[in-house]
Amino acid sequence: MTLAVTPQTADRLQYHLQLVQRLIERQRKLEAPLRPDDGEPSSLAPLPQDNLAELRLRLAQLHPADVAHVLEALPLEDRLLAWDLTEPSRDGAVLLEVSDAVRESLIEVMDHDELIAALVALDADDVAELAPELPRQVVYEVMGRLDEEERGQLQEVLSYEEDRVGALMDFELVTIRADVSCEVVLRYLRRFDELPNQTDKIFVTDETGRLKGVLSIRKLLVSDPEAEVSEVMATEVVSFQPDEPAQDAAQAFERYDLVTAPVVDENGVLLGRLTVDAMVDVIREESDSEVLNLAGLKEEEDLFAPVIDSVKNRWSWLAINLCTAFFASRVIGMFEHSIAQLVALAALMPIVAGIGGNSGNQTITMIVRALAMGQMQIGQAGRLWRKEIGVSIINGMVWGGVIGSVAWLLYGSISLGLVMLAAMTLNLMLAATMGVMIPTLMQKLGKDPALGSSVLITACTDSGGFFIFLGLATLFLL
Amino acid sequence: MTLAVTPQTADRLQYHLQLVQRLIERQRKLEAPLRPDDGEPSSLAPLPQDNLAELRLRLAQLHPADVAHVLEALPLEDRLLAWDLTEPSRDGAVLLEVSDAVRESLIEVMDHDELIAALVALDADDVAELAPELPRQVVYEVMGRLDEEERGQLQEVLSYEEDRVGALMDFELVTIRADVSCEVVLRYLRRFDELPNQTDKIFVTDETGRLKGVLSIRKLLVSDPEAEVSEVMATEVVSFQPDEPAQDAAQAFERYDLVTAPVVDENGVLLGRLTVDAMVDVIREESDSEVLNLAGLKEEEDLFAPVIDSVKNRWSWLAINLCTAFFASRVIGMFEHSIAQLVALAALMPIVAGIGGNSGNQTITMIVRALAMGQMQIGQAGRLWRKEIGVSIINGMVWGGVIGSVAWLLYGSISLGLVMLAAMTLNLMLAATMGVMIPTLMQKLGKDPALGSSVLITACTDSGGFFIFLGLATLFLL
Repeated sequence: MTLAVTPQTADRLQYHLQLVQRLIERQRKLEAPLRPDDGEPSSLAPLPQDNLAELRLRLAQLHPADVAHVLEALPLEDRLLAWDLTEPSRDGAVLLEVSDAVRESLIEVMDHDELIAALVALDADDVAELAPELPRQVVYEVMGRLDEEERGQLQEVLSYEEDRVGALMDFELVTIRADVSCEVVLRYLRRFDELPNQTDKIFVTDETGRLKGVLSIRKLLVSDPEAEVSEVMATEVVSFQPDEPAQDAAQAFERYDLVTAPVVDENGVLLGRLTVDAMVDVIREESDSEVLNLAGLKEEEDLFAPVIDSVKNRWSWLAINLCTAFFASRVIGMFEHSIAQLVALAALMPIVAGIGGNSGNQTITMIVRALAMGQMQIGQAGRLWRKEIGVSIINGMVWGGVIGSVAWLLYGSISLGLVMLAAMTLNLMLAATMGVMIPTLMQKLGKDPALGSSVLITACTDSGGFFIFLGLATLFLL
Repeated sequence: MTLAVTPQTADRLQYHLQLVQRLIERQRKLEAPLRPDDGEPSSLAPLPQDNLAELRLRLAQLHPADVAHVLEALPLEDRLLAWDLTEPSRDGAVLLEVSDAVRESLIEVMDHDELIAALVALDADDVAELAPELPRQVVYEVMGRLDEEERGQLQEVLSYEEDRVGALMDFELVTIRADVSCEVVLRYLRRFDELPNQTDKIFVTDETGRLKGVLSIRKLLVSDPEAEVSEVMATEVVSFQPDEPAQDAAQAFERYDLVTAPVVDENGVLLGRLTVDAMVDVIREESDSEVLNLAGLKEEEDLFAPVIDSVKNRWSWLAINLCTAFFASRVIGMFEHSIAQLVALAALMPIVAGIGGNSGNQTITMIVRALAMGQMQIGQAGRLWRKEIGVSIINGMVWGGVIGSVAWLLYGSISLGLVMLAAMTLNLMLAATMGVMIPTLMQKLGKDPALGSSVLITACTDSGGFFIFLGLATLFLL
């Protein structure tokens, strides 16, 4: 019963992964038909079925989240072999933990009965989480097998959009009345076999189901057993409504260090609860989609997805970018005559476009984040624009000065250097303006300011940069 | 004692913010010297000191995290007015909640005594969190005021790098022995005035302080009071060592849905604990820095920072980008002779460079994330490279075909179209190769694969794209 010092968590996961990989590799070798150059099968080699049994045992010893991690890190064919050996009763738990892309690959190979078996072991809210990716027929059948209360819960959760509080709540509530003593509450709790995960508070409701307050377990444990619940419960409760954005709830969890929180309807009737682990997932997904968006990926990709799936995932952004690049190319095309006369322009123009793109992305990222966190109101756009213009003038003077001087030295023309300086400064100012304007306008129009912000700003600064630089050059140099 | 239905959380915050803003605005008006066109001061206007008192009261009613939010959303001069009105006893709690950049602006205006007063109200681990940004003198003085145990804790936490588990642990531990009954534990807990925040488990140690197991509160509440702790405690515990990366711990919290977890030294002696709220902060910061890195910002920026601070924050990335852009410009310079002969090349070359940059960023982002999550081992680089090459050939054929045809139509030269097709495909293959190679190599060299990945790949695909396209054109078209 002594506790082994746990190896560092990351190493431990790595170790399990490698173990599984080794077993799978051995399995492939054992199953391969004997080739002449393989020689005699070693008498020391285990039988294929023993090897499989060991693999099955190893997987069974892992936490479902660790199984999920191992599956995600395995190439497709190995993943499906391991998935096949996972205990059916834990399939549901593993499916909940894997990424969307990998989940799809796993569900694809499960037949109807396997899916049903995996799902009936789950709570209603967990079934709801998987539902969008399941065949409709399977969802209906699972629904039919639930008792009335659970079916109601499942339908309730499914009735909300994925990004709403209602879609993420669970129903593992412990509720009590306000007029009992702490002693009674303790006795009541003792009758449970197990308290719901993450339980850090008990919900106090009246006979109509309305939330009257919460009794934190920490408080309950230090309270006088004789004290009435109404005396020790908290009545100022951070609670949520099911149609609130999940992001807002996650931010509140972060802000107030919550572990669980009640979800109530507009009359204050307790519907369910949110838990911090679901909120951590929201935070993770939110930031993931921000990163993927910035990098031009539609969604998280399964590392080992077939080529065609990857092409599809990246297709739309590439297409949009190509359109904007083509537009920029036509802007250059307008000035082909100027370039033919002064070919140095061709070499210098990407610098002007580039610095505008970089600087514009800096501005727009900052503004988008401030809008998302509620730290910026649209009314402040003017003030922030003035600031960004200040930044861009300084940057334009400094970097435009440097590059302008280099251009002067390289091509021996001071006017070319001056045009470079002016074009860089102007393009930076354009970048600042667009960087503030695009997200503020999107927000005002009720759109998500993050969506495509990076592509839009780069399109502006590329085409704008070419136009400004080549235009100025045509006016003053030719 | 009825519980008002809380308004949606985001709206509520917005409401508080606007209220504070209105009061500050009124204060500015009340304090402004009367100008002739202002007319008579309205007899209905409150006195300046009453207005201030109301503002102070409003702020006092907010949770420290909400005060932090309000401060972050206020322009500098308004922020400092509000900060001045915040109750000194809560200054420390607010400082813990604001972003680094805003924290700096607040600490800057506090004098020595105010800082000391704010800090002594905090726990050792919280002081440690603020320490890097405090004047050294202040830290020493606060240390001197702590009792020996707390001083030891503070020094312990300060001895770890910011991104290690040790720097984030706190010392609010409730420990018990294994050989007592649950009844005794319950009585012991009742003697506390308050249990530490987030307490979901009690740590079971032996006489040498070694962790023997954990007793979850959920378990304690449903256990037979007569049962001995050793019978009901869990002995398989996810624990951490202080020198582990905080990111790994955060991933483990996410994976196993933990609320708190013990930190032990290499002998298994209990040192402190991690809580989920600290881990949520780690997850948030991790993803923030990923986004900021992608956008070319050094760190989170105070929205209302002076222009010069913003310039500094963005300076380094712009400088690096300019260098790579300049290099790309010199690559073009090598082919000025070709461009002079066929000026269409100047218009088409940004398209080749652009699609390479976009596609390379897609690949590198995916690989960097997979490496960070431990889902990809370096040994799999070859396999993934082959996949990415497959993706790039398909994309090259499709998009190169489209743009090549357009170029053919525009400029009436089929060979120009073919060069375009070949250059786009080759640059996409270069992007795929670099996208896999750069992060894998960084990881192998023990560097952070995320650092500068976007800049590096864009540098390769810009210069590479120009070189490939102009080189092919020079060979085959001129």
